[in-house]
Amino acid sequence: MPATGLESNNLAFQTESANLTNNHSSNGDLKLNQNARKGWNIRSSKIANKTHNRIRGIVESLKITPNPEKPMIPLTIGDPTTFGNLRADDETVKAVQKAIGSGKYNGYAHSQGHEEARRAIAKYSAHQSVDEIHPDNILICSGCSSALEYCILVLCDSGQNLLVPRPGFCLYKTLADGLDIEIRYYDLLPERRWEADLRQLESLIDDKTAALLINNPSNPCGSVFSQKHLEDLLGICERHYLPVIADEIYEHLVFPGSKFIAISSLSKNVPVLTCSGTTKRFLVPGWRTGWIIVHDREGRLSDAISGLKNMCGRILGSNTIVQGALPHILEKTPKSFFDGVINIIHANARLAFSILKEVPGLNPTMPEGAMYMMVGIDVEHFPTFKSDTHFVEELVNEQSVFCLPGSCFDYPNFVRIVLTVPGHMMQEACTRMAEFCKANYKNGNGIIENGLLD
Amino acid sequence: MPATGLESNNLAFQTESANLTNNHSSNGDLKLNQNARKGWNIRSSKIANKTHNRIRGIVESLKITPNPEKPMIPLTIGDPTTFGNLRADDETVKAVQKAIGSGKYNGYAHSQGHEEARRAIAKYSAHQSVDEIHPDNILICSGCSSALEYCILVLCDSGQNLLVPRPGFCLYKTLADGLDIEIRYYDLLPERRWEADLRQLESLIDDKTAALLINNPSNPCGSVFSQKHLEDLLGICERHYLPVIADEIYEHLVFPGSKFIAISSLSKNVPVLTCSGTTKRFLVPGWRTGWIIVHDREGRLSDAISGLKNMCGRILGSNTIVQGALPHILEKTPKSFFDGVINIIHANARLAFSILKEVPGLNPTMPEGAMYMMVGIDVEHFPTFKSDTHFVEELVNEQSVFCLPGSCFDYPNFVRIVLTVPGHMMQEACTRMAEFCKANYKNGNGIIENGLLD
Repeated sequence: MPATGLESNNLAFQTESANLTNNHSSNGDLKLNQNARKGWNIRSSKIANKTHNRIRGIVESLKITPNPEKPMIPLTIGDPTTFGNLRADDETVKAVQKAIGSGKYNGYAHSQGHEEARRAIAKYSAHQSVDEIHPDNILICSGCSSALEYCILVLCDSGQNLLVPRPGFCLYKTLADGLDIEIRYYDLLPERRWEADLRQLESLIDDKTAALLINNPSNPCGSVFSQKHLEDLLGICERHYLPVIADEIYEHLVFPGSKFIAISSLSKNVPVLTCSGTTKRFLVPGWRTGWIIVHDREGRLSDAISGLKNMCGRILGSNTIVQGALPHILEKTPKSFFDGVINIIHANARLAFSILKEVPGLNPTMPEGAMYMMVGIDVEHFPTFKSDTHFVEELVNEQSVFCLPGSCFDYPNFVRIVLTVPGHMMQEACTRMAEFCKANYKNGNGIIENGLLD
Repeated sequence: MPATGLESNNLAFQTESANLTNNHSSNGDLKLNQNARKGWNIRSSKIANKTHNRIRGIVESLKITPNPEKPMIPLTIGDPTTFGNLRADDETVKAVQKAIGSGKYNGYAHSQGHEEARRAIAKYSAHQSVDEIHPDNILICSGCSSALEYCILVLCDSGQNLLVPRPGFCLYKTLADGLDIEIRYYDLLPERRWEADLRQLESLIDDKTAALLINNPSNPCGSVFSQKHLEDLLGICERHYLPVIADEIYEHLVFPGSKFIAISSLSKNVPVLTCSGTTKRFLVPGWRTGWIIVHDREGRLSDAISGLKNMCGRILGSNTIVQGALPHILEKTPKSFFDGVINIIHANARLAFSILKEVPGLNPTMPEGAMYMMVGIDVEHFPTFKSDTHFVEELVNEQSVFCLPGSCFDYPNFVRIVLTVPGHMMQEACTRMAEFCKANYKNGNGIIENGLLD
């Protein structure tokens, strides 16, 4: 581009900054760079283009028109606050109001988060470790999503791979793809209460494998790993020198009869980065308060801890209002509140399971925790549907019940339903699903369309 | 590593998931990958290693022991809430308490932020555009830092370069370095009220230049660009087809007699991404509520907007509590509050300027806005100090006054002082700086140590 109308080659305007090292500086040089853009052509970067939310992509491309004669029941949304039947506890709410009123929590926090908040998290998370958790090993992030983002981005370099569960939460891939971190799926087996296929998992590992990500309790499976299974997973990590990223955002959200065990509490020498937060258990996903706890007995993560601290300097973590309230929230929210939430979800799980297990063509798995149920579809009995997304579309169009297709979790021929809706909606939704299946069920002609497995 | 103790090659455990396409799946294959890691060697990723906060790095390496006989006065911290003399307005605080109490803002928001919050931002930001701002073109982020992160990461690919001001806020480099986005510094000229050296700026542009970042009002300069200067900058962008990232977090924070003009309001066809938030003007930096407004008359940013939306799916933006309160905060916070804040900062600026301009060896620039003042050091008159960091160290050791060395902003031979401290501390700090300079000033021997400019 021609240099017209430029001013100030006047030496009086030269400053001492001209003395600074700058490879590109050309003060006093009349020739301008001719190598500039030749027209408007503003493109989005590779990282932005590759950052995709699979659920949003699939859901937005669905062709759905709910049946106008039936009110819509969305069983898609992993937000327990949507229906108003599950509300944050008064202690939680008041603690934040008090934190704001105090005027003490308006300033910037330490980039890892306020120390008193981290001390409270350490105490709250004592079950995660046989050793004492030090607040220095905790990093407060803008939601568990941000905690996961930093763990993945710090442990994995572009070109490396990360082992993640299938079916699994699609965010792991969303976060990794943009940075060219390869996602390798290990299978969870429905007939083994959604435990990992250990053999297949181990076969995925190579010298580019950076970490094993586990999600326990699981979204979308609602499964809770046994101590034995967690020890088997740690055994693999030990053999292959792999750190664990443990997405335990549903910690403690388990039904009576099941027990949640933090994988870090069983680890003898496998380093674990545990991600959790207030989102699910305290019913406040919008508050964006999550954290990473570094479990690292042998000092194997010292480099990664520096990296995590660096990353926390990018956007300075979670809002300070919730941080200020965190000691009160974590300590004073009564057990009765948690029990109440679990009872509601558990009752819905039993209700849905009892209805759906009787429906020809459906195979629900009774969950042990979290807030979801996976329901298998005997695709050979629904030959009119080309895929699980097609099944979901028609279920909306005929019955106004909206589930997420298994494809959203890289696991076709299933649907995921959420269990946080009011009981009467759960009942109604399952009844309609039964009606839908009855209307579309074909008795074993054995034909499976190829398209079913895409 | 040898595969011992593995289980379940049993076909009964095979699931239909084994039918899914998976390049790495080896179900039924007995041979395990031998290519795994050979020992514990967990390294932090390149992005994490390259993400550095320059200020933290410099400040933490300073050798300082405050003079025990004088209470420490930190003029380093760009957090206006530190000293308690500047507090958020009652309307602001009450609005958030009300939002929490309503129970309506605990769930997830749209990944771009609640629509009513975006509508309020559009109205609040009407000065930024001659056209109406559409809420779809607003993305709420976790603080202005996150807004800047997304703008930089979406507009710039690895290997491209971004033009940023020197002296300037170090976060731009922190955010870019990790992604291998090159930072090119254009100089701001103290003798021209910190306007950009347009000629030098233009000489930096090549076909790898992705965007021009401007920061107005400026941290650390406290300068406010004139309409003419903004038009000159837009002219360069027009000639070179460059979009602008406008960091306007200090918008409206200008002293009487100066006027803030949003660069987007002057742009005829240069697309502008404006970053702002509640942090500085509302005195709530810890609340982490910032936003991007896309100004794009000619539809040149449509690809970038998709990219920004993708990026917002990574960690789901700012906390919903503040979002819920945002309409009230932006509309009802009284002008008297803003005026009061500006009066306090302006009074400090005049006080500091009046004292420091009389000190031999110091050259303060009277700021026009923001909350900072840059003070030049006539290094030839302080030959005992090897650098601006050395000057800062000794100022703490002798007088317990702590400023940031210009090196933190890639601009040596200056110090930055913050103007948000209580008036009596401002007075005391400047008096001590004068005393310090008097004690260390050497009368023109002309010797300049080489080390001074490192």
